[in-house]
Amino acid sequence: MSSHPLCDVIAAADRAISAEDFDGLMDFYADDAALVVAPSLVATGKAQILKAFIGISQHFGHCLTVSQRQMEVVEGGDTALVLAETVLDTEGAEGQAVSILRRATYVFRKTPEGDWLCAIDNSYGTGLLGR
Amino acid sequence: MSSHPLCDVIAAADRAISAEDFDGLMDFYADDAALVVAPSLVATGKAQILKAFIGISQHFGHCLTVSQRQMEVVEGGDTALVLAETVLDTEGAEGQAVSILRRATYVFRKTPEGDWLCAIDNSYGTGLLGR
Repeated sequence: MSSHPLCDVIAAADRAISAEDFDGLMDFYADDAALVVAPSLVATGKAQILKAFIGISQHFGHCLTVSQRQMEVVEGGDTALVLAETVLDTEGAEGQAVSILRRATYVFRKTPEGDWLCAIDNSYGTGLLGR
Repeated sequence: MSSHPLCDVIAAADRAISAEDFDGLMDFYADDAALVVAPSLVATGKAQILKAFIGISQHFGHCLTVSQRQMEVVEGGDTALVLAETVLDTEGAEGQAVSILRRATYVFRKTPEGDWLCAIDNSYGTGLLGR
């Protein structure tokens, strides 16, 4: 895994999702960020993103742990493109462990203070282009 | 193809590459942009990016046409993530037509004047994560 500071930021955001601390999670997003909830469904702004995460949590039966495996960061123009193997661990209908692997694309923007905020959260990566 | 204004911007940049107008091409990039020339090789800033394009042009024997097929744009936080099927048309060693298809990820940043500048040009998409 790359040692870019964003690795720690993303790990902290993953912990907030897994703990269902969605208010805390919003600190990682820019005010006008976009979250791809599903292909063709984009939540824009913190209010919509918060609502989307509550829905996602319900969808996964309040049993979702998010983590990243391999991660690559390309930084340019006060922005960073993060390419990541994202793992969603949850439980199936019969309580069995289910692991979903995605190749995600995240865009972060650096604030004038040097903090990174997520501007675009697209866990579907280039999968949005279809098969 | 999405009708986002960035589709026209990217089409114009593709025409500049195909015409080997690399000075004109630089107008599409932020001053501190990053270009993924090859996995593990990133050019940063216009001087390095210009040099990289001259090298890419030589690599393809001054016979390279770039175009995009399907394109999806996700906009948030004054940035845009573009997911695109990029087609590189060139000639093989024996003059035969060769077409290379990539699933690319481009990050654009909106200037205060409302123009879009490319901050990160990664034609390898999530392919940077390896197979």
